[in-house]
Amino acid sequence: MSATLDLGRWAANCQLDEVPGSVCHEAKRAILNFMAVAIGGGGHTAVERALAVAQATGGSPRCTLLGRMERVDPLNAALLGGIASHVLDFDDTHVPTILHPSGPCLPPLLALAEWRGGSGADLLIAFVVAVETACRAALSVFPAHYDAGWHITGTAGAIGAAAGAGRFLGLTDECLAQALSLGATQAAGVQEQFGHMAKSFHAGRAAHSGLLSALLVEQGFTASTAGLEAPHGWCHVASSAVQVEQLTAGLGSRWELLNNTYKPFPCGVVTHPVIDGALEITRQNHVEPQDIAAIELKVHARVPVLCGKAEPRTGLEGKFSIHHCCTVALVDRTVGQAQFADRRVVDPILSTLRKKVSVEVSPELQPDQAVVRVTRNDGSRLECRVEHALGALEKPMSDREIEAKFRNLAEPIIGPERANRLAAAVWSLEGARSCRELIEWGRKN
Amino acid sequence: MSATLDLGRWAANCQLDEVPGSVCHEAKRAILNFMAVAIGGGGHTAVERALAVAQATGGSPRCTLLGRMERVDPLNAALLGGIASHVLDFDDTHVPTILHPSGPCLPPLLALAEWRGGSGADLLIAFVVAVETACRAALSVFPAHYDAGWHITGTAGAIGAAAGAGRFLGLTDECLAQALSLGATQAAGVQEQFGHMAKSFHAGRAAHSGLLSALLVEQGFTASTAGLEAPHGWCHVASSAVQVEQLTAGLGSRWELLNNTYKPFPCGVVTHPVIDGALEITRQNHVEPQDIAAIELKVHARVPVLCGKAEPRTGLEGKFSIHHCCTVALVDRTVGQAQFADRRVVDPILSTLRKKVSVEVSPELQPDQAVVRVTRNDGSRLECRVEHALGALEKPMSDREIEAKFRNLAEPIIGPERANRLAAAVWSLEGARSCRELIEWGRKN
Repeated sequence: MSATLDLGRWAANCQLDEVPGSVCHEAKRAILNFMAVAIGGGGHTAVERALAVAQATGGSPRCTLLGRMERVDPLNAALLGGIASHVLDFDDTHVPTILHPSGPCLPPLLALAEWRGGSGADLLIAFVVAVETACRAALSVFPAHYDAGWHITGTAGAIGAAAGAGRFLGLTDECLAQALSLGATQAAGVQEQFGHMAKSFHAGRAAHSGLLSALLVEQGFTASTAGLEAPHGWCHVASSAVQVEQLTAGLGSRWELLNNTYKPFPCGVVTHPVIDGALEITRQNHVEPQDIAAIELKVHARVPVLCGKAEPRTGLEGKFSIHHCCTVALVDRTVGQAQFADRRVVDPILSTLRKKVSVEVSPELQPDQAVVRVTRNDGSRLECRVEHALGALEKPMSDREIEAKFRNLAEPIIGPERANRLAAAVWSLEGARSCRELIEWGRKN
Repeated sequence: MSATLDLGRWAANCQLDEVPGSVCHEAKRAILNFMAVAIGGGGHTAVERALAVAQATGGSPRCTLLGRMERVDPLNAALLGGIASHVLDFDDTHVPTILHPSGPCLPPLLALAEWRGGSGADLLIAFVVAVETACRAALSVFPAHYDAGWHITGTAGAIGAAAGAGRFLGLTDECLAQALSLGATQAAGVQEQFGHMAKSFHAGRAAHSGLLSALLVEQGFTASTAGLEAPHGWCHVASSAVQVEQLTAGLGSRWELLNNTYKPFPCGVVTHPVIDGALEITRQNHVEPQDIAAIELKVHARVPVLCGKAEPRTGLEGKFSIHHCCTVALVDRTVGQAQFADRRVVDPILSTLRKKVSVEVSPELQPDQAVVRVTRNDGSRLECRVEHALGALEKPMSDREIEAKFRNLAEPIIGPERANRLAAAVWSLEGARSCRELIEWGRKN
């Protein structure tokens, strides 16, 4: 086995004309979704606070922060771009591993494209390589790695980010493998941080680690070329059950980007089937909060582990509270950014209603399935069984829905004119001679 | 259990006059040893290459790089200081966990002291807090964490670095706990990187992560206050056998700094008993390389795992080759920097001799014990059993020996005048009104 070297060789050499059109199109959907959530998240307090550190310590402000007016140095652009893209918990999800790939993978490429220059095609192939590598790394350690409590976006994300940045910099085979390896040896992030700013920091730190890895190797810094598969390499150290073959099996013919999905709701992805069911109940029935006697949920086993915060105190915690997600959907009949404002989460009507929620794990349910049952004071029952949540692989968001999500998030910040141009630039990315204009449209003017 | 909060509270409030004199003295020994290896390592290619990235991307050059003329921003000073201190594999070792504490813990404090200002006493108490925290974190996950393949200097080191930096910045109880938690969620580094520049990078990245954590929390960035002990916090995620009580048991009365040791040889610490034995044999006997028929080693189980590179190709790999360490000691009769030059490692006489080395793990041997047996062509045998390697807790380097090591490494780079002043400044650290002069002595003029 020489998985790190094989993966590095593929990442260094894969050509855009070898990538199927469906995969390129999925990459552009992921990029547009990233633009939506990075611009939408750019004003979040977490970004403000990290920006203060970047401005006090960082270098020449060469790189744009999407949805903001400030510029920062390339490594801080990667860090802050990753944080912004993940802080709303509204980003993309690689279904087989619950990895959110674009947050770690794209910011290093945008930073390099602005700093070093490069075409739309350069950006697109590097992004495809980055996401594929991140997903392969995630698959090689899943599910043991995830179930142990690692936040896989922070871990596998750093490896993908390193691959993409290395590819964009033109690293050759062995050097690209060393960049992967250096990314892997920085892979970090634990699930206890869910509900805190540190969660979005994981995506930013992975982007930062990946870019730093590629820049170091470009200067001749060395790392093991077996950093993934060796007995004391990342895979075996970070997972008790490793499938090394997942790193390379069918590279160039099987594409993990096709397993990527986009969130319709800005919160933990495992809450989405319940939200879907609760919204469906309100569409079919008139439900007043004071009429509700009990809310019974049947869910996949990961829901209480990842989103079991019964009494959230902040908007960020609310995103990881199946109790909040379910009750706010029933009361507000919609689930968007407003439903996760700090003030909304501590609303007394919702607090009272959350105490009526019971959560039962059902082994027969898949991650994108749930049953929501509401019992009213008069004894009547409303029930909805969700077979596939909106946004799941079997029920994907359409291009139009992703673009609507983008406009919803981006227009209030960059205005409709820039949003129009940016969306058009993403859909025609492979034809652009430079990426600088695209990035410029994402800036707040 | 609220270990992260308890540890944070202690780190925020521990006063220098509560620290026993012996602990303060050990801290100064560790700082002088750090100065030795950071100045000695400052010119290494690994530092040069990382510096190129720092200069291309970093911020205002406010902070000194020991043993160099360049200055960089605080975060890069932490990164490069950690790399420099660890790249010679000549730094300190916390015996119970094989953690090298000063490399991650001190560079953030030197950077802050130069940037923000602060007295010698401020530096000293923050360093004591940092090392104690790093060692406690390491103890809580050892040995399962280490044996799984984590490089504990990169992992626990980041937690200690965050504690020290947070203390220097004056973070209060809960904020300090959040800084610890943010350090822990960045903890990374795998043993496959031993023998590559990535190994020393782990110490630098831990220093960088710790400083970044404290600076972010100072700005209000949030993290879980149970980031260590929670079911999906760092301890349980990164170790299959956790002793949470080690994080806080006897805090303020039991001091892990007293379990810190200093290396007499610039290579993996587990090779030291064998080197000691080989040198002892050459002191007692005349041994010519061509007379040697076989070299049999009995060692602790970690030796082949960590330092089993039978055919090293570079100086860095040689530092993790029990074969090279043993043979070069027999041939050169001394083990210093010169014995790990790239050219020395590929010497044909040594290559031939390495093939005659056999390594046997002996369950009755402690990590600081070894048996070296040399059989000559005439059938005669020379044997040395080492009960405690030089530098072990039971046979510590004296203050004078540490100062001699410092002069050996520092004088060729900063000259005897600056070396004199720096050593004097370290021994009287608690009386200094500012640390800036001390740091200035460590600069190359």
